[in-house]
Amino acid sequence: MALQTKRVAIVGLGLMGGSLAAALKADHACREVVGIARRAVTTTLALERGLVDRATTKLNAVTQAGAIILAVPVRAIIEMLPQVGQLAKPGSLVMDLGSTKMQIVRAMEALPGHVQPVGGHPMCGKETSGLEAAEPDLYQGRTFVLTPLNRTGAQAFALAKELVEAVGARPLVLGAERHDRLVAAASHLPYLMACGLVMAAEDLAQGDGTLWQLAASGFRDATRLAASQVTLMADILLTNREAVIGALNTSQARLSNLANLLLSGDEEGLRSVLNACRERRRRAFP
Amino acid sequence: MALQTKRVAIVGLGLMGGSLAAALKADHACREVVGIARRAVTTTLALERGLVDRATTKLNAVTQAGAIILAVPVRAIIEMLPQVGQLAKPGSLVMDLGSTKMQIVRAMEALPGHVQPVGGHPMCGKETSGLEAAEPDLYQGRTFVLTPLNRTGAQAFALAKELVEAVGARPLVLGAERHDRLVAAASHLPYLMACGLVMAAEDLAQGDGTLWQLAASGFRDATRLAASQVTLMADILLTNREAVIGALNTSQARLSNLANLLLSGDEEGLRSVLNACRERRRRAFP
Repeated sequence: MALQTKRVAIVGLGLMGGSLAAALKADHACREVVGIARRAVTTTLALERGLVDRATTKLNAVTQAGAIILAVPVRAIIEMLPQVGQLAKPGSLVMDLGSTKMQIVRAMEALPGHVQPVGGHPMCGKETSGLEAAEPDLYQGRTFVLTPLNRTGAQAFALAKELVEAVGARPLVLGAERHDRLVAAASHLPYLMACGLVMAAEDLAQGDGTLWQLAASGFRDATRLAASQVTLMADILLTNREAVIGALNTSQARLSNLANLLLSGDEEGLRSVLNACRERRRRAFP
Repeated sequence: MALQTKRVAIVGLGLMGGSLAAALKADHACREVVGIARRAVTTTLALERGLVDRATTKLNAVTQAGAIILAVPVRAIIEMLPQVGQLAKPGSLVMDLGSTKMQIVRAMEALPGHVQPVGGHPMCGKETSGLEAAEPDLYQGRTFVLTPLNRTGAQAFALAKELVEAVGARPLVLGAERHDRLVAAASHLPYLMACGLVMAAEDLAQGDGTLWQLAASGFRDATRLAASQVTLMADILLTNREAVIGALNTSQARLSNLANLLLSGDEEGLRSVLNACRERRRRAFP
């Protein structure tokens, strides 16, 4: 119920921030939604589309908010946190939507004692980006990771949870280290493998454009993530390097295993691995 | 126009054969569609669903057909070809829907001189299989590779093309070697990378089931192919081993390159590769 009385400031009106604003506003979940973006063209569009109650290009608008949501790329969050900490009013919730948590939570530890930080990471997105792609249903039914700090008070954490539930998502509390390790496998590795597949296909085509005529829906779906925004992804990969490199190594070991089974013509071994794989996939996505 | 006068026998009533039958019948494209399946339960279902005019479990029904389409897994096609060659009437078109072409075309070379073989490979499919999943629109707008042999007559090839166009697909003539090399990259590699990703995620989870809660739509799409039928895929991989192993090696080199860029923290190099990748993907799927 606390959310009803709060002014929520959302910094960054791209796909994630814009969709969060839209969901909060559509539900009348809080007192006011204030959108903050770098460019006036974005704030104008957000107002025109009715995604926010107010919009501004000035970061100091966070001063009036009871909840501040940072919806910019990971390293922009880290850079912005000290200034947000200075501007935020006492007791204000400072949450983010960044895709890695260790470095962000470390930066949150350094915030002034009067603000209440909570790390956040909604497990949703699209390969299209920007406010144009924003939609109030983006968070509906999705897992939304919350990473409270030792210093986070119970009230602030309850407010973060209420906000997550208000946009239709399911909160999942995870420590930063565990989060980063698991999303390296669940999210960052799939992106890099999609990129590796596109590049390998380009290599193997050797200029024969017919390859792309043969690339059907299977290839399209397998490489969808390769169309992700590079700035977002570079931030994510570079703030989770160790886990991502480990995940890449693991995937390479698995691909080597498949190559070896083929090389030795070990049909029984091959079928057993492919069957295990199919079962695991079907268990994850029934 | 030749197709109108022909009886078409389709051997194998799974997703591909069942959908081909359904498309031909819905369009009244030929004189009669005869479905041939191993199990009586399949022929009964095909008749009940109205996908065929007649159905039987007896392969010798191909004797009456002017066009015989083999819609079974690759190695079953190769095993079946000699018998089909003996049963087929003079001048009959013998075509297949197998996903690799070199070994099939080699087996087709050995057919008796009175039949007219053409290799075929429609670039469509779903991860669901079986007659239950068959639909007349499966081929609509899809690329359908045709691989004529030196011995294939002009009339037989024209009939194969007419059949492809009758089900709404776009014929693309490709030699067997070039086909197998290109689909190793466009189709077999995506499957193996999807499997590698599922297995790597399972390894990296180390029993922590939370990983699967974090696996969102990106992971789901990237691994969709890993749910493919193992018997079909094992046949495909084992009849295209050399090209598939080469494609796996190329993908591993690309993943190593990405790991090295991350390891060295070469942000500029990383962004440049990721950008090239995004552009290539967007060009292929605008």
